[in-house]
Amino acid sequence: MNLQSDTSKDNPASPRRTRPTTGYALSLVITGDAIDAAQISAAVAELGAEVRSTAPINGGLEAFVACSGVQQQQQVLDVLGGLSGVDSVCSSDTTFDLHVGGKIVVSPRTAIQGPDELAMAYTPGVGRVSTQIAEEPSSVWRFTGRSNAVAVLSNGTAVLGLGDIGPEAAMPVMEGKAVLFKQFGGVDAYPVCVNAPTVDEVVAVGAAIAPTFGGINLEDIKAPECFEIEERLQKMLDIPIFHDDQHGTAIVVVAALLNAAKVIGRPLSELTVTIVGTGAAGVACAHLLAEVGVGDIIGVDSQGILDSSRAGLHPSKQWFIDHGNKRNLSGGAREAIEGADVLIGLSGPGVIEPEWVSKMSDDAIVFALANPVPEIMPELMPENVAVVATGRSDYPNQINNVLAFPGVFRGLLDVRATNASMGVKRAAAEALAAMVVEPTVERVIPGAFEEGVAETVARSVAEQARKEGLARELVAD
Amino acid sequence: MNLQSDTSKDNPASPRRTRPTTGYALSLVITGDAIDAAQISAAVAELGAEVRSTAPINGGLEAFVACSGVQQQQQVLDVLGGLSGVDSVCSSDTTFDLHVGGKIVVSPRTAIQGPDELAMAYTPGVGRVSTQIAEEPSSVWRFTGRSNAVAVLSNGTAVLGLGDIGPEAAMPVMEGKAVLFKQFGGVDAYPVCVNAPTVDEVVAVGAAIAPTFGGINLEDIKAPECFEIEERLQKMLDIPIFHDDQHGTAIVVVAALLNAAKVIGRPLSELTVTIVGTGAAGVACAHLLAEVGVGDIIGVDSQGILDSSRAGLHPSKQWFIDHGNKRNLSGGAREAIEGADVLIGLSGPGVIEPEWVSKMSDDAIVFALANPVPEIMPELMPENVAVVATGRSDYPNQINNVLAFPGVFRGLLDVRATNASMGVKRAAAEALAAMVVEPTVERVIPGAFEEGVAETVARSVAEQARKEGLARELVAD
Repeated sequence: MNLQSDTSKDNPASPRRTRPTTGYALSLVITGDAIDAAQISAAVAELGAEVRSTAPINGGLEAFVACSGVQQQQQVLDVLGGLSGVDSVCSSDTTFDLHVGGKIVVSPRTAIQGPDELAMAYTPGVGRVSTQIAEEPSSVWRFTGRSNAVAVLSNGTAVLGLGDIGPEAAMPVMEGKAVLFKQFGGVDAYPVCVNAPTVDEVVAVGAAIAPTFGGINLEDIKAPECFEIEERLQKMLDIPIFHDDQHGTAIVVVAALLNAAKVIGRPLSELTVTIVGTGAAGVACAHLLAEVGVGDIIGVDSQGILDSSRAGLHPSKQWFIDHGNKRNLSGGAREAIEGADVLIGLSGPGVIEPEWVSKMSDDAIVFALANPVPEIMPELMPENVAVVATGRSDYPNQINNVLAFPGVFRGLLDVRATNASMGVKRAAAEALAAMVVEPTVERVIPGAFEEGVAETVARSVAEQARKEGLARELVAD
Repeated sequence: MNLQSDTSKDNPASPRRTRPTTGYALSLVITGDAIDAAQISAAVAELGAEVRSTAPINGGLEAFVACSGVQQQQQVLDVLGGLSGVDSVCSSDTTFDLHVGGKIVVSPRTAIQGPDELAMAYTPGVGRVSTQIAEEPSSVWRFTGRSNAVAVLSNGTAVLGLGDIGPEAAMPVMEGKAVLFKQFGGVDAYPVCVNAPTVDEVVAVGAAIAPTFGGINLEDIKAPECFEIEERLQKMLDIPIFHDDQHGTAIVVVAALLNAAKVIGRPLSELTVTIVGTGAAGVACAHLLAEVGVGDIIGVDSQGILDSSRAGLHPSKQWFIDHGNKRNLSGGAREAIEGADVLIGLSGPGVIEPEWVSKMSDDAIVFALANPVPEIMPELMPENVAVVATGRSDYPNQINNVLAFPGVFRGLLDVRATNASMGVKRAAAEALAAMVVEPTVERVIPGAFEEGVAETVARSVAEQARKEGLARELVAD
């Protein structure tokens, strides 16, 4: 999940992003007479960075070093260059190296060996297949890649937490998504980054490209425009439209909450959930939480609690007043958190004070999902908190959308679904939760690389889609 | 090339489509006590079909049989089923088999092995790459697949010769194109079949998706809309827009004509060229022929010769009057062909009579490019014809777009070109022609599967683009 701006990204003053990550890793070639791997590792560790691997080479050492930011990268280079016995340090930034030329390729399923195969894959043979589809439109699902193709459609208006940086800058993210789609779900996803800043423009391009795809994964489109875009496209088209920033997050959050509630031994219907941050993810979480029957939902945006005194709200925010905040609380995040059983942060780094959380009920559940710096760091949780989840891989219970979208689309494509309904999303969340047989405080959700996640989610999604009549009747194969 | 309707496709009355093709091939499993491969081949040959391969299996024989159409497929099945010694004949249509599930896949360039790699390919690492592109837009060419990506964009209004069969039915063709792009040019092409019947709609979607791609190959969009679409997109965008039905055809036709003129020993400036069929391909051929300096160009459409008496013409047709038909000929195809040195047919099957061709000059050149049934079959050419080309692989001199588009886009992408200019197209044609070192009547153009075609075309295209200032300055890599 990448819900919020990486405000500490290159900021040495940020006290909270301290852990090194391969996202800021350096590949080093260190040369010299007396290179000592242990000495290198120690010097790197002293800076807070981490040598992940080393390999001796002629006249020196190769090392792979995870850092916490670009400033630390520079410190590593400076310190290593100054070590006695080191002649030179050559470095490259592995994240940028990995991106050169892009992250995906398009390939023939089978190569064309000569004119005979050309006559089948291209003219005159292909004309017969086109004619077949023109005469029997449903055969497009059998004779083209549409049945396994998903557009990862973004206009770049809310890329990660970086804001409206445009379609070109969104490309690396959408390519990354396509990689994950294939690797976890076997889905042929293609990035479609569009110069389409308005609702009407995104809807027009989404509707136009639909014949190529079996589903559209909307991505990194800002709220509240994203709500209308999704709704209009779903009405116009007969393929599933799924805004991952909304529903991927909601599915994983609800799955984690289902298990967290088990861990603390309380029914969902008793729980009061405060959501701090009512953008795309917060709104979708609220809807899915209501669907699974939580007791009450209190929404908090940058102006404070969404209560009946607020006027002129976008429908996505008005929902919280019409369907939640049953005690009509007023105030800010502090007041919304006090007495709540569950806190879901989908806002910004460090915005929640430990003292506020200490006023939550006993055995409180806190999902602090701003990434990479949560609303409140796990180590600062007061004693009344029983279960903590974040968006980070270096703490227990990582809320990661990759647990949802590959399996959701795999299931939808498997039955050539016409829609990703609320029931489908609920089924995905329940299947994901059920993968953890015995939930504990440290394990309310499977790990991102755990075997079988996408398959399990897909089975459940496909079954639910069939149940709801959303599965396209399969052409007799 | 697929310029015209396969009118004879499934029509047993068509006398001219007699040659078997793998585009109508059957995979057979023939069982029985006394299966004799030679007997099978003979029975198949008697029907005009052709056994391409056989392999003995337990209790019988597998055979791969090329046919000329579906009626012949049925005849083959009937005859083989009735042979003595044959118990059963199971068949499948290999063209349809090959299309099941589509013809292309999207894959990660490298798989993500675990959380460390995820942190580089996805968050937090990917955010750094997005930030870099936002700050330095030209780095999108280095750090994303845009530098090797081409959209094969079609609205399905003129698919092969099948007409306006829509975007879904166009999919198999665009996927086939993507296969050829990769195999011949190393280009990552992706089919974008759009529900966008009007000029404005195609332009809107083309402009919107442009940030994802390094070029747009327009395909199977009907004339005259295709002209305006291409022109408007090229004006709006800074990536090459190339309507292959126009320019791919024109490049190969002009390459073949350059060599054919050598074969008959006449300069281009002396040649009068009659073009029968002034749709997308005919218009583009005329423009490129003018560019290389042919003496005169006479256009003929379904109403006859484009002469000064014709009023209210679309600008694409008016061009022939403003720039060609210098003797202001009037009449029909017969009159336009009489006395011409070169005839280029881009119209329909069998529309040109041998007697008309016999009135062309000595050592006439005839490119009869309707496919699969040419305007006039090569075996019907009168004696004055020196050089013949068709769109078919089973005669010499096949005019096949695959000789052009992979190399053209390879060259354009290699220099991150902003435009596919007339000069670029001319350079492609000249490079293609130059590949045939000693042209003969049987060889005025390389074969589709000849080594090095795309590379040669690409080099020439890239060089010309640089010369014209169309090459984007490369980011220091």
